[in-house]
Amino acid sequence: MRLTTFSDYTLRVLMYAGSVGDRLITIDETARTYNISRAHLMKVVNTLTRAGYLEGVRGRSGGFRLAHPPAKINLGAVVRETELDFALVECFTADNHCLISRFCRLPNVLNEALNAFIATLDRYTLADLLLSERDFDLLSPPRGLVRGPLVDGLKASNS
Amino acid sequence: MRLTTFSDYTLRVLMYAGSVGDRLITIDETARTYNISRAHLMKVVNTLTRAGYLEGVRGRSGGFRLAHPPAKINLGAVVRETELDFALVECFTADNHCLISRFCRLPNVLNEALNAFIATLDRYTLADLLLSERDFDLLSPPRGLVRGPLVDGLKASNS
Repeated sequence: MRLTTFSDYTLRVLMYAGSVGDRLITIDETARTYNISRAHLMKVVNTLTRAGYLEGVRGRSGGFRLAHPPAKINLGAVVRETELDFALVECFTADNHCLISRFCRLPNVLNEALNAFIATLDRYTLADLLLSERDFDLLSPPRGLVRGPLVDGLKASNS
Repeated sequence: MRLTTFSDYTLRVLMYAGSVGDRLITIDETARTYNISRAHLMKVVNTLTRAGYLEGVRGRSGGFRLAHPPAKINLGAVVRETELDFALVECFTADNHCLISRFCRLPNVLNEALNAFIATLDRYTLADLLLSERDFDLLSPPRGLVRGPLVDGLKASNS
């Protein structure tokens, strides 16, 4: 089970923008901070600007920042916006060919589980994810550090 | 957000095996029933047999069937078994390079959401998904039928 890279990067951009406060940041700076592709980030920042989460300031010392206080940016709402495709199984897509789709009871169960997932995110805002700006000043990637998944009843994959 | 095809096919195999009762079924029959790849199904059936969900019967009229009553096959347990990779974001994988992994608060939120997803599946068993054998006797795929996702607060994609 995976979120799209688009959602992953969206959350990173918002966390960084929120963590630096009112300071304008740029796509280049954000790409360097996370050591990720500038091209991917450009699409993410454009989408977040159009959706009203970020506001851009033009000019030589321009950049972008949050358009709202972090406590007003709900994580469930963000993921609904970015995770266009909650295609857990084939019959959740327009390219569905599963022959038992008309009768199958699985979609009801999966939709209930999906809504439990999103409802959890609905209880958090960007304010719950903010770090100090200093936390972003790391020199090397965290070799072998895995933060999840930690599924109840499943052997922890954390090492 | 997607489950793996492996989980999708696993659930289909179990639903079909459960819906035909004690009758032995084969990989060929299951592949025809769902119009999906025999090669994919073989791996699924082997895994489910090794994991004790299916039991195989050798010989010319052999095949496989459920190894337990459907009410004893919990959907959360099945998905924990098949969805080896709950890699919602990069730091849930061994190939994690995200520089803020040590401090980031997002994994806690995502693990909580993931557990809410699985906990929903834990409330259902295969018995909740069984159909009549007749429901599998369809002649054509359901053109354009989409069964999900139906996320609260998101425009329904059902058509």
